Amino acid sequence: MKYCPNCAATITVKIPADDSRERHVCEACGSIHYQNPRNVVGSIPIYGDKVLLCRRAIEPRHGFWTLPAGFMELGESTSDGAARETFEEAGAVVDIGPLYSLLNVPHAEQVHLFYLATMKTPNFSAGEESLEVALFDEQDIPWNDLAFPTVKQTLEWFFADRASGALNSEFHVRSRDVLRTEKI
Amino acid sequence: MKYCPNCAATITVKIPADDSRERHVCEACGSIHYQNPRNVVGSIPIYGDKVLLCRRAIEPRHGFWTLPAGFMELGESTSDGAARETFEEAGAVVDIGPLYSLLNVPHAEQVHLFYLATMKTPNFSAGEESLEVALFDEQDIPWNDLAFPTVKQTLEWFFADRASGALNSEFHVRSRDVLRTEKI
Ligand SMILES: [Zn+2]
Ligand SMILES: [Zn+2]
Repeated sequence: MKYCPNCAATITVKIPADDSRERHVCEACGSIHYQNPRNVVGSIPIYGDKVLLCRRAIEPRHGFWTLPAGFMELGESTSDGAARETFEEAGAVVDIGPLYSLLNVPHAEQVHLFYLATMKTPNFSAGEESLEVALFDEQDIPWNDLAFPTVKQTLEWFFADRASGALNSEFHVRSRDVLRTEKI
Repeated sequence: MKYCPNCAATITVKIPADDSRERHVCEACGSIHYQNPRNVVGSIPIYGDKVLLCRRAIEPRHGFWTLPAGFMELGESTSDGAARETFEEAGAVVDIGPLYSLLNVPHAEQVHLFYLATMKTPNFSAGEESLEVALFDEQDIPWNDLAFPTVKQTLEWFFADRASGALNSEFHVRSRDVLRTEKI
């Protein structure tokens, strides 16, 4: 941020009087422009024993597989955003269940939230941001061609919890921080 | 947003070619300035049978009681943010436990996340944003003087779950959307 979005004056980066962190401050109009992490909301769409994945038609990670997910929009809830992204990217209508995973990605200034989701029918289709969409059995998951560490970790947790029976009762949200150095 | 933070040109509100929502677009430099909900992260600081609350020294809701919470900062995780806010507002060092509640507040463009937290010692003190800080037994909670619906709902869930024993095992995150019309 170089210019004030309110008045177009040049922004100063400084610690405001009653603060402890550097902020983007406009000394012309007095506004402070805070910056905060963004939420990426998505789902684990389940049909029977299979999970629905999308192959990305956009950068970053064009051509790699992901769970349907995207930035949460103003005016919607986390679960509504997860359902919307699932429909937009994978053409699938889902019943959103409990929050399953929360992964912090501080270096990307993001928080990733994935909900368990049940597909009502085996209907799906590639949205504009997907090259293809497919249902996968656990043994067919393209582990080496996944798009993001948060997707890989969420799928690893999911299959382990499904095997142990943990998904059949209440569970704590699976959560950890993703390091900048993590690769798929 | 009236002016482009990158180039100071006047912003146009329009639906970009590959999008379905109105965005803040700069036709001079081509940038699109997305707006997303912000996370408010906090804790339920527990010492024995008591919960720590802060009385707000700032607006909104000056003078009303709240759980320690505030906006998540860039570069931190949700749980680190919850611990930081608990120390800044209540002077309490806590061990952060599992995520307990997630409340969407779409009309405020916020998501509120509260973690269970254990106070290591009964030490606390009012930070700059608090008039006073105190440990409360359930029967002494100032229900009519709470600052926000998300705090009230989180405390209601917490005491119900503690009474039922649900806190002693794994649990789904308690979650709902808060309506614009909700009052304390
Ligand atoms: Zn300004
Ligand atoms: Zn511009």
